[in-house]
Amino acid sequence: MRIALDAMGGDHGPTPNVHGTRLALEANPDLTIVLVGDQAQLEPRLAAAAVPANRVELIHAPQVVEMREKPAEAIRRKPEASIFRCWQLLATGAVEGLVSAGNTGAVVAGGLKTRKFLHCVHRPGIATVMPTAKGRCVILDVGANVFPKPRHLLEYGVMGKVFAQSMLHIDRPLLGLMNVGEEEGKGHELVQKTYELFRTSHLKDHFYGNIEGRDIHRGTVDVVVTDGFTGNVVLKLCEGVFEFIMGMVKSEVIHPLPHDRELAAQAAVQLVGKYHYSAFGGAPLLGVDGVCIICHGSSNERAIANALSVAALDCRLKINDKIVAELEQLPSGNDD
Amino acid sequence: MRIALDAMGGDHGPTPNVHGTRLALEANPDLTIVLVGDQAQLEPRLAAAAVPANRVELIHAPQVVEMREKPAEAIRRKPEASIFRCWQLLATGAVEGLVSAGNTGAVVAGGLKTRKFLHCVHRPGIATVMPTAKGRCVILDVGANVFPKPRHLLEYGVMGKVFAQSMLHIDRPLLGLMNVGEEEGKGHELVQKTYELFRTSHLKDHFYGNIEGRDIHRGTVDVVVTDGFTGNVVLKLCEGVFEFIMGMVKSEVIHPLPHDRELAAQAAVQLVGKYHYSAFGGAPLLGVDGVCIICHGSSNERAIANALSVAALDCRLKINDKIVAELEQLPSGNDD
Repeated sequence: MRIALDAMGGDHGPTPNVHGTRLALEANPDLTIVLVGDQAQLEPRLAAAAVPANRVELIHAPQVVEMREKPAEAIRRKPEASIFRCWQLLATGAVEGLVSAGNTGAVVAGGLKTRKFLHCVHRPGIATVMPTAKGRCVILDVGANVFPKPRHLLEYGVMGKVFAQSMLHIDRPLLGLMNVGEEEGKGHELVQKTYELFRTSHLKDHFYGNIEGRDIHRGTVDVVVTDGFTGNVVLKLCEGVFEFIMGMVKSEVIHPLPHDRELAAQAAVQLVGKYHYSAFGGAPLLGVDGVCIICHGSSNERAIANALSVAALDCRLKINDKIVAELEQLPSGNDD
Repeated sequence: MRIALDAMGGDHGPTPNVHGTRLALEANPDLTIVLVGDQAQLEPRLAAAAVPANRVELIHAPQVVEMREKPAEAIRRKPEASIFRCWQLLATGAVEGLVSAGNTGAVVAGGLKTRKFLHCVHRPGIATVMPTAKGRCVILDVGANVFPKPRHLLEYGVMGKVFAQSMLHIDRPLLGLMNVGEEEGKGHELVQKTYELFRTSHLKDHFYGNIEGRDIHRGTVDVVVTDGFTGNVVLKLCEGVFEFIMGMVKSEVIHPLPHDRELAAQAAVQLVGKYHYSAFGGAPLLGVDGVCIICHGSSNERAIANALSVAALDCRLKINDKIVAELEQLPSGNDD
């Protein structure tokens, strides 16, 4: 199995990508990693990290999309950037998947440009796993498609269901539609029409109906379907609230303790590690014909290795085949 | 000063409303409260709670909008419901403000029906105060207007600014537009057009630009402007994340402590009380000609009293006059 890695992507440049490669190769004996990036920077790092040369390939890409660069401009001005080279490899079948911690917008734009979507998919969406009081849920889209059509959301429901079954081992996932109230008829036209699509599709037995913001972490459903604008705000808000509350817990609960301060502080650090949203690894861009995992820009080597392993697992589990088989059960719908 | 109270509103019926009335009267010597609701239920409760009879008036309303009732249906089927009677009192000038812990959608629908908006306001919006790492911020709209126009969001910026100045005592509030990334040009058409309106208005020196979900609790800005769909999800998500994390803190940090478990548990309870979103009192529906405070359905007497006091303060500070004066500085804009 061959996975391409955008070796220049992320806030910390090639180093965590190279070390993540070594860790992922150790964990996945069937894996070959194609590192795409600046040869002059990658070769010495690969040698220094003692990455087995027979299990990596290096493809030179002379350009890098910066983290704050506008995707549309990047695609025009830097066609040879590492992330776009990864997509070319995927589009030509040279690799089965790709992983990038680079500019998320550019990763998505590269994917949209290849137009290599799965059969029956109108627009790919980014899925993210979140912790809940009952375990885990998957939420999508979290930013690929900020103004979707109802049909897109229906397809995200299918993709989320298959993902929850295959990756989260939930036999009969329950799907919820993010809204401002539980009652049918709530919200704007997009969610009203989407509600109707779910209710009349073969997913109806999996469809919980509308959910509210507080339902996500209560674990009311296993799959949260939402537009990419709302989903992106949700994702980043969770990060912010988590940070804020843990700060308050440290100063107002842990710091004043006379005896157990050290112990409590250690437990808090562990909790942050366990429930921090970045601990849930990369986020798959579902709906493309191939595997694409988008990592947090601040990913360390462990996060990169984790994402490479998830990409390999996605390939092994043939998630895309399952998504297509299920999408084919939907009534044919156009992109509106 | 006369404030109407929807005495039937809320999950717990008239009791917390009656007790909240007593507390608010004690705290506000200039206040008269007009209780609107079922006379037969209210009279004995007012007597039992020893509410001073010379400072309350009772207006009988034979109907109640249930918490899960659809607002549009309620307005048609129950024109004499307590919340709609409150709006009639406001519209005729019989009271200066109203407070309700009832069905939020019905409160908003009642307000929209009176069409008694402030000069220059196209659509009212609900504002909520949230704690941040730097103090407090105000976010609006959190649910009155789920599919707004850019002009509405610009007006929310003005209202939020005046609110932050008057109620949060922030001299020069910084305004942020909720988006999926900081860079100009991010997001869908609504936020792109709104960005441009802010950038070219007299608010431009107060305009921070786009913010992301994680910025809210970091306190990056003092006023968060967003559509009512996103804002409502944000509000309820915060509640859910807070609940979730405090649950984890209790079981994983506090419970295992050998010596200080009790002390830490007490501090956690205090923290929950201090930072819980319901502790920030009622949410004003800004933009109506009068004062309207919407309370959480689960409000206790303290929350009702708090909301009545805030309504009285809004009247005293003449927030609406300030909003109108500032809205008049905007270039005239139509509702698109």
